[in-house]
Amino acid sequence: MTYKDAGKTAAERAEHLLSLMTLEEKIGQMVQPFGWQTYENHNGNIALTEDFKEKVKKGGVGSLYGTLRADPWTGVTLENGLSPKEGAEAVNSIQKYVLENSRLGIPILIGEECSHGHMAIGGTVFPVPISLGSTWNVDLYRDMCRAVALETRSQGGAATYSPVLDVVRDPRWGRTEECFGEDPYMISELAMASVEGLQGEKLDSSSVAATLKHFAGYGGSEGGRNAGPVHMGRRELLEVDLMPFRKAVEAGAASIMPAYNEIDGIPCTSNKELLDDILRKEWGFDGMVITDCGAINMLAYGHDTAEDGLEAAVQAISAGIDMEMSGEMFGKYLAQAVESGKLDMGIVDRAVLRVLKLKFQLGLFDNPYVDPAIAEAVIGSKEHVSLARQLAAEGIVLLKNENNLLPLSQASSGTIAVIGPNADTGYNQLGDYTSPQPSDSVVTVLKGIQHKLKAEPERVLYAPGCRVKDDSREGFEFALSCAEKADTVVMVLGGSSARDFGEGSIDLRTGASKVTENETSDMDCGEGIDRMTLQLSGVQLELLQEIHKLGKPVIVVYINGRPIAEPWIDEHVPAILEAWYPGQEGGHAVADILFGDVNPSGRLTISIPKHVGQLPVYYYGKRSRGKRYLEDNSEPRYPFGYGLSYTDFSYSDIQVSKNVISRDEQTVVRVKVANTGTRAGHEVVQMYISDTASQYTRPLKQLKGFCKIHLEAGESREVTFTVGPEELSYIGENHQRVVEPGRFQILIGRHVNDTISAELNVRED
Amino acid sequence: MTYKDAGKTAAERAEHLLSLMTLEEKIGQMVQPFGWQTYENHNGNIALTEDFKEKVKKGGVGSLYGTLRADPWTGVTLENGLSPKEGAEAVNSIQKYVLENSRLGIPILIGEECSHGHMAIGGTVFPVPISLGSTWNVDLYRDMCRAVALETRSQGGAATYSPVLDVVRDPRWGRTEECFGEDPYMISELAMASVEGLQGEKLDSSSVAATLKHFAGYGGSEGGRNAGPVHMGRRELLEVDLMPFRKAVEAGAASIMPAYNEIDGIPCTSNKELLDDILRKEWGFDGMVITDCGAINMLAYGHDTAEDGLEAAVQAISAGIDMEMSGEMFGKYLAQAVESGKLDMGIVDRAVLRVLKLKFQLGLFDNPYVDPAIAEAVIGSKEHVSLARQLAAEGIVLLKNENNLLPLSQASSGTIAVIGPNADTGYNQLGDYTSPQPSDSVVTVLKGIQHKLKAEPERVLYAPGCRVKDDSREGFEFALSCAEKADTVVMVLGGSSARDFGEGSIDLRTGASKVTENETSDMDCGEGIDRMTLQLSGVQLELLQEIHKLGKPVIVVYINGRPIAEPWIDEHVPAILEAWYPGQEGGHAVADILFGDVNPSGRLTISIPKHVGQLPVYYYGKRSRGKRYLEDNSEPRYPFGYGLSYTDFSYSDIQVSKNVISRDEQTVVRVKVANTGTRAGHEVVQMYISDTASQYTRPLKQLKGFCKIHLEAGESREVTFTVGPEELSYIGENHQRVVEPGRFQILIGRHVNDTISAELNVRED
Repeated sequence: MTYKDAGKTAAERAEHLLSLMTLEEKIGQMVQPFGWQTYENHNGNIALTEDFKEKVKKGGVGSLYGTLRADPWTGVTLENGLSPKEGAEAVNSIQKYVLENSRLGIPILIGEECSHGHMAIGGTVFPVPISLGSTWNVDLYRDMCRAVALETRSQGGAATYSPVLDVVRDPRWGRTEECFGEDPYMISELAMASVEGLQGEKLDSSSVAATLKHFAGYGGSEGGRNAGPVHMGRRELLEVDLMPFRKAVEAGAASIMPAYNEIDGIPCTSNKELLDDILRKEWGFDGMVITDCGAINMLAYGHDTAEDGLEAAVQAISAGIDMEMSGEMFGKYLAQAVESGKLDMGIVDRAVLRVLKLKFQLGLFDNPYVDPAIAEAVIGSKEHVSLARQLAAEGIVLLKNENNLLPLSQASSGTIAVIGPNADTGYNQLGDYTSPQPSDSVVTVLKGIQHKLKAEPERVLYAPGCRVKDDSREGFEFALSCAEKADTVVMVLGGSSARDFGEGSIDLRTGASKVTENETSDMDCGEGIDRMTLQLSGVQLELLQEIHKLGKPVIVVYINGRPIAEPWIDEHVPAILEAWYPGQEGGHAVADILFGDVNPSGRLTISIPKHVGQLPVYYYGKRSRGKRYLEDNSEPRYPFGYGLSYTDFSYSDIQVSKNVISRDEQTVVRVKVANTGTRAGHEVVQMYISDTASQYTRPLKQLKGFCKIHLEAGESREVTFTVGPEELSYIGENHQRVVEPGRFQILIGRHVNDTISAELNVRED
Repeated sequence: MTYKDAGKTAAERAEHLLSLMTLEEKIGQMVQPFGWQTYENHNGNIALTEDFKEKVKKGGVGSLYGTLRADPWTGVTLENGLSPKEGAEAVNSIQKYVLENSRLGIPILIGEECSHGHMAIGGTVFPVPISLGSTWNVDLYRDMCRAVALETRSQGGAATYSPVLDVVRDPRWGRTEECFGEDPYMISELAMASVEGLQGEKLDSSSVAATLKHFAGYGGSEGGRNAGPVHMGRRELLEVDLMPFRKAVEAGAASIMPAYNEIDGIPCTSNKELLDDILRKEWGFDGMVITDCGAINMLAYGHDTAEDGLEAAVQAISAGIDMEMSGEMFGKYLAQAVESGKLDMGIVDRAVLRVLKLKFQLGLFDNPYVDPAIAEAVIGSKEHVSLARQLAAEGIVLLKNENNLLPLSQASSGTIAVIGPNADTGYNQLGDYTSPQPSDSVVTVLKGIQHKLKAEPERVLYAPGCRVKDDSREGFEFALSCAEKADTVVMVLGGSSARDFGEGSIDLRTGASKVTENETSDMDCGEGIDRMTLQLSGVQLELLQEIHKLGKPVIVVYINGRPIAEPWIDEHVPAILEAWYPGQEGGHAVADILFGDVNPSGRLTISIPKHVGQLPVYYYGKRSRGKRYLEDNSEPRYPFGYGLSYTDFSYSDIQVSKNVISRDEQTVVRVKVANTGTRAGHEVVQMYISDTASQYTRPLKQLKGFCKIHLEAGESREVTFTVGPEELSYIGENHQRVVEPGRFQILIGRHVNDTISAELNVRED
């Protein structure tokens, strides 16, 4: 039969298979129940649930969500969860059951979360995306995505719900950490890399289908409140929010997820213009569209654009949804909708075809099973852990370093007090969407520093001082006594996106031991945890201020998921590192930087404001943007692209090879970058473009190129960028992309406000 | 000749006049130099400047801006300014000069500011618009507009740059005080009243042409920063921001002013869709469009949508601008543009025709002169001052009144300490766009209270305590000593939009005397003064906290221009009045309420947040709007429509007369409102509509009716509202207004969160 013939194309096989299916079987392919509910784990022996078996027999199950996902939501823990090998075996037995017990034997698409690591027991925990963005190292991120794909697919996971391509405009938003930053170009570069890394050169049995999300505008919600309405015009939407999606679609992304939010009155889940006119017709996307969890319900019970679930389901599928995560509404109403004539079978077929085609492309029909031994070898492998350490180090941004306090001398820094709620709390450095971890697989900052000084363990003191967001000061005394004894104080402050993993807590009065069940959550960030302020939670600032009074050199390390606005710290503390949530190897990475084994090379991909009342502060503003408030100007504390190094770089000799070009021509811009300091280091060379006049207003500056280079002390190098229609064009008349003739400024430098420039002219003809 | 023939229509006369004009004369009609620069005042004798005479001879002057405007910007003071009578004479001599010294003798359109009073020496200063909105008394506001028109026209002012119809979304914005509030329906009602009041029944010699501004989106600027870019989709723009303009155009507004800002990449000043497609073609507006000051320059030097001034001028006139305030760009470039073929004479003619037609309609050709005696009689008349007092009282909102601390008993309230920087600082209660005032024409809160207790002057103590935004605590001791002696403390805190009128300052240590030149401005609000926080400036909170410690009953009166977020005050102070900037009679109005001579009836037209980090908090949100932050929910402290009374009201018996209607039918909703307390009082009965499901998302609740009624103690009354297409429709498919069938909830009550409801169904047919 055609559909079983590996010699035919995926499209041909899907068409044929579709022709054999009943309506019930078709609907089965469009739903995605929760995978962790399909089995029970009896000490590694998997028993499929009757409910799952029933579903398979009734019409099949197109996809499962989170079969391997482990976290408090799924209830999968280190104790009851499956090892890497067992997980692979479980997926095999799921596939075996469906192949053997359904009429047509259609394998299941196993969908997993892996935004910064395969979210299963044992999976390597990489830094969160805001840290990955801060590396400005696209190649390294691509390597990470490949590693994550190998870990995921080794257990049979064939689709993932990443990358998150939202453009963050408001850091109050709890999901800021899940995004690469505020700039559409920067996000686009990482978006393409993620597709290349996750899917490989083409979709096959080693691919994990990338799902671009959240399409679109999700990073611009009202008040930074998760999934809130988006107020945005069509031009901005096309120019900013859609750009990373367009680029990732061009790179071949196989799947996309509409956002929960509405834009100007239209929920994305039922937005035909977005899902059909733009995505498919204009961009030529031919992959699959899957909803966010519960997004169709939300049409009827939230956005209220549908009278009931049936109308919601019809709206969603008609707009272009192919699969419903959870599948509640599709499962309940699609058959009824077709039978009552409210929905054409043609629309159902269109959706099912896309699902089936993807399964064929991913090799699920030809290779439905995985080798558990490979899962065991690849998941959490030494190489992946080492990659996590490198990414974490490159994602750390040195915000301040007065009088070169950093790096510390390993020999002469004396006794070091490591103090703060995030100094030795493993989960607090892993970010949201993280699986449970055995404590010895997470290197905290304390452990990282202890490791550096392992020959002299007595030189490292530790006190938690306080919790992230609790108001107790009972740990202050102990923390102050540690600091008193030290020559240098490293304060590890910040936030936490750790959900309740039941890991117990730390005795604030003594530091070392974990004594009770974790009663107060530290969580002040993550999905659903939006904030009204950007200050440190709890009594952290107070703790720092008390310790600062001792007059010792203090270094602040932030471990957190969104910009922190603490003017006192910026003004009084001599050295500040922004480490974001650096993942399981974060402590090593921080220690590498503190002691100078790694020269910091992270740069901000999100502007850090001075106060929540300044928002928005993203750099990508129009020229008419106001520049002042009564209390202060409207500039961020640390601008986009900013980050210090232990060495110095200088820029010179900017040249545009051909400085008058036609609209469709390219030119090359050269600049000389020199390491003028005394250490080797990486520099992120950033190119911005400014259009001096345009028919529609444009941002004053737009990032249009960057590269990360390594320079030895004293070395200099010429860096080149190509500038042409891709870089110069914007959304002009009739909302079409256009290069307008006129004068452009090309700005290259260290960050958005520190550049040298050259002129480029585009001719009329 | 036709154009001089009063028997012909304005259009006919304008057409004829246009046919006689040279290009230079035409351009002359399209510019509006600064009027205060046209003359010198020699002790009441006016000498026209050579520059003005030159302009008149060169081609004429179409209009003058601010000929009578007095404030620090114009440099017109009480000392060098013109009295009401002299002002009228000055305008007469200007008109005389132009009639006698220009070829065609076209009178000048004298344009003035009168958003809350004719902004000339002697003009009555009414409360600012955010206070006028808070009255919910449309009739009284219409009366005010008529009064303002009489004052203005009595001096020859025939056009004004009000009403401000911006929908405030972000109270950080310094111009919040100049707006009626956050709700488009409420603004629309006042918009229509302003046109009726300013222009009268029809345009004639007693009219002042209303200029609707700022068209459009100006109240939704990024970060609350004045004139910043607006991020908004077309549907929201049509539904929210354009509604008040549409209503005012329907009411016959003669003039409109595009906003400085851009919307989604298009500056309003050159927005053809806004100025032509919507305003003229769709709404049928046939009046005049005048720019904001410097707005055309901004196209070339700000928005950068024009290469230079010439291109900017051509863009503006082509989009539909008829007159340029200042006239710099039109004066410089229009002739050149026509002569070089870059601009059609037809477009110039179209603009000039509109200007001329308005002048004919206003009777300027037939009655170019005014009677100075009338100006003297009408400007600042007793009737107008009394109206100002009534408006001020009705605009005061009682926010809190624990244990009925208010009203104070005149007999038994004992000694009253009136303390705070706004207790006796006249300019601080007048708001932005205010002329200089002799000190005896402004009744401060101190004076108002002294007036109430004039029989026992020793019962009133006064201390300034501190300045509005200065950090000096040198007045604390004196303030505390006053409070110590008192039985009741009235703290008058808030902000100031007073520009530097050179009025000297108060000695903080003694209170009574003014000793030095005003060195530190109190200004923390007003145009160009946007804020990052919404807390009280300076040390005001600290002063209050010190005084609160004494344990005396404390009443806070806010005098200010934007919502104040001070949680400590909301929690600790038993009685709070929001008086906004209540105008020259504000002190009487506050005293009337403090002592119960007036029962407070003001209601908020802007939601008051708890913290700047909650923004936006306007009530008009979509259902999908997030409801929480980590620190608190996202609800305002005081909701839209909120305001206490000294009596109680109850609502019952809500009924929809016909609860199933067709799409084009109306129905009547009845509700019984009872005064269940012991005092007579005004209640603002508010009707909101909620559409339970709609094709495009709608706000959860929308104000669609209100009325202010008076009820004696124990009295009850039936209030009715009509609900039909106007109230039920919204911007639906293809951005067209539509009534969708389905279920609606009609909610009536005291404020947006305190209502009773009934159901209404709209049939499909």
